[in-house]
Amino acid sequence: MRTTINIGIIGFGTVGSGVYNLIKENFETIAIRSGVELKVRAICDLQLSHVRENAPDVFVTESWSDITSDPDIDIVAELIGGTEPALSIIKDALRKGKNVVTANKKLLAERGAEIFETVVETGNSIGFEAAVGGGIPCILTLKKGMVGNQIRSIVGILNGTTNYILTRMAEDALTFADSLKNAQTLGFAEADPTFDIEGVDAGHKIAILAMLSYGRSIPFELVPIEGIKNISPIDISYAKDVGYVIKLLGIAKLINGKLDIRVHPTMIPKGHPLASIRDEFNSVLFEGDMTGPVILNGKGAGSLPTASSVISDIVQLSSKRDYPGKFIGKAEVMAPEDRISRYYIRLYTEDSPGILSQISGVLGRNNISIASVIQKEVDEKFVPLIIVTHEARESDMLKCIDEIQSFSFVKERIVFIRVEDFKKGMK
Amino acid sequence: MRTTINIGIIGFGTVGSGVYNLIKENFETIAIRSGVELKVRAICDLQLSHVRENAPDVFVTESWSDITSDPDIDIVAELIGGTEPALSIIKDALRKGKNVVTANKKLLAERGAEIFETVVETGNSIGFEAAVGGGIPCILTLKKGMVGNQIRSIVGILNGTTNYILTRMAEDALTFADSLKNAQTLGFAEADPTFDIEGVDAGHKIAILAMLSYGRSIPFELVPIEGIKNISPIDISYAKDVGYVIKLLGIAKLINGKLDIRVHPTMIPKGHPLASIRDEFNSVLFEGDMTGPVILNGKGAGSLPTASSVISDIVQLSSKRDYPGKFIGKAEVMAPEDRISRYYIRLYTEDSPGILSQISGVLGRNNISIASVIQKEVDEKFVPLIIVTHEARESDMLKCIDEIQSFSFVKERIVFIRVEDFKKGMK
Repeated sequence: MRTTINIGIIGFGTVGSGVYNLIKENFETIAIRSGVELKVRAICDLQLSHVRENAPDVFVTESWSDITSDPDIDIVAELIGGTEPALSIIKDALRKGKNVVTANKKLLAERGAEIFETVVETGNSIGFEAAVGGGIPCILTLKKGMVGNQIRSIVGILNGTTNYILTRMAEDALTFADSLKNAQTLGFAEADPTFDIEGVDAGHKIAILAMLSYGRSIPFELVPIEGIKNISPIDISYAKDVGYVIKLLGIAKLINGKLDIRVHPTMIPKGHPLASIRDEFNSVLFEGDMTGPVILNGKGAGSLPTASSVISDIVQLSSKRDYPGKFIGKAEVMAPEDRISRYYIRLYTEDSPGILSQISGVLGRNNISIASVIQKEVDEKFVPLIIVTHEARESDMLKCIDEIQSFSFVKERIVFIRVEDFKKGMK
Repeated sequence: MRTTINIGIIGFGTVGSGVYNLIKENFETIAIRSGVELKVRAICDLQLSHVRENAPDVFVTESWSDITSDPDIDIVAELIGGTEPALSIIKDALRKGKNVVTANKKLLAERGAEIFETVVETGNSIGFEAAVGGGIPCILTLKKGMVGNQIRSIVGILNGTTNYILTRMAEDALTFADSLKNAQTLGFAEADPTFDIEGVDAGHKIAILAMLSYGRSIPFELVPIEGIKNISPIDISYAKDVGYVIKLLGIAKLINGKLDIRVHPTMIPKGHPLASIRDEFNSVLFEGDMTGPVILNGKGAGSLPTASSVISDIVQLSSKRDYPGKFIGKAEVMAPEDRISRYYIRLYTEDSPGILSQISGVLGRNNISIASVIQKEVDEKFVPLIIVTHEARESDMLKCIDEIQSFSFVKERIVFIRVEDFKKGMK
């Protein structure tokens, strides 16, 4: 049996519209997985006509109290950001018996204690997965996945804009100013990037993570924060010479009862997992006393990734118990022969002319094209020949291998390893 | 108000004893965070005296039905592994009104459909975070964090033993046999490593992830599985030449309604996030349609990491609602001056004798020792001098910088960047 949950969205900007679009797109997937049917019942935004154009089926209002006062709304999504009226909206919604979901990192970092008091006082709940790490489930990991751990430390790349700028400075040898301009052109930095560049955004996020990990409210004004404006290409280059990479990190650990919390550019060894987090990606490392390091990476911002976290909170606040789900049926497993992949093959052949042409002939006749060949000069009768192919059907590849294996100049069994480039979606 | 949850542990091996020890160690932390007091009420194991020695305060039995029939037990943790009697235990416990937590990947992969039928039929719940990825919360991420996403693909390094062996082969130029022996000596491989080496363990895990992601039962016997026995150092070396790394991957994606699922050694580009996962660490990449790639890394096995996942399930099955938690108080923020770190400084000085000795003199008098110095030969009057220090107190470092800045041979503002090695716990 499915439950319908009525949602009121306040703020129809990047995140708010993402939530609306995600629900439209994945309504059925969510219902199958969670037993919850999500319905956007009302949207509050000052740009009424913009909302009406993009969400024609929903009641629209300019007044947020229309949402918090609507008895049929179960969950209020506060997605306007900033301190006021966000704080009043959240408190009012909680007091009117609603659960709240927010992406407002500034408000949680600076006024979190006050909000959590209202949560305890009203007996309602607040979800804020979207406030840290965009689509990465780091709040869930801390609150639920690692609930059995004492958190020894948190280290994170928590701001995509600055990570993009630092990555481009390092890889394209750009100055800070050029890299920032570049990021703005590509939409990875705001027109006014002050909050990002100066580390305040990362500061808000590390404060929220520390608050959860150590069960203490954080006096945000005391958190030491340093941005990346003074990082110059020469330091990035010297860092590289000594095996380091410069990243803007948020760090928090409890040392003898005192909270060591800060944001600053940091040199980290190039083999460290955070060193390979590039461009606009975020990453957070929780060191648990039981788990050891647990690291989460993904897109730290953007309309749909952040909306995904809002939805995660909404579904969790909506489901009464662990939903067993239902199988659609038995999976039909694809036969290995039908798979498309790239392939690496290694064979030993005699070192004589014409052999490569015979082998590539077999591949060509089976529609397999060669991406690269290595044949090193060796003082031996038999030489290794390495071929990496472009994408091909596995059945074609296996047929070729059989055929090539049967040539009398091929010695030993041909070695065959699949190659995946993960070109789609990943970097 | 706190709730007490009574747990019955069946199987007191690596994971079972880890659960017992974790609760003993972090009882209060868990209660503060979740409102749940965990009590191990009974343990079932055939080695009675071994259990009594290590858990002297708990009722011990040889008979699992003592646990499933105990009306005071709320949650049964099935931690013996294998098919029987594990399957009977789980079904019996569910039918007797208990929630179940298990780490049994083989059972879930091969008989998952049957178990989930019993779950639906009884209205109780089963948690199995510990079955995949040890201490990494990948089930939680799939079920809750990414509930709003359609999963485009899953790619994972899901077996620590084989990843350890492949890493050592690549980095120490060992043969498969030597690397395996090495892994056995260090406890990263079992005496009988067949299940790991041949990819069956990774197969169980990718089957469980695919089952959850695609809502279909998986005919496990049809999953194509290939292990790492035939990987030779020469292929690892050729792969490196063309910019690839060889990893044992579990892969699952739905293509036109057919499930492409498999385990095999795979060449992946060396810049890919999974390529840098070394030794016994695991990693899984979920590609969501909304989030894009979400990657989780951590320890994929071991007593306490796996126990951490069992506890995560137990707490989730125990909490009726989102527990607000309570702040212990306001965090006392450590003053920047008190922090210990390593430091990078860059300064421009005149190129004349005695300067380095004056600068290192200042550092030495403030108890700061130098880790490395770079001074390149340049045809200019002013030359950059780079110093990286060992660990020092930030107040001492700042004092040195003031002092050095005041030397007349130092030009421009001294650049100062903190260096973190994360030596503790991380690799």
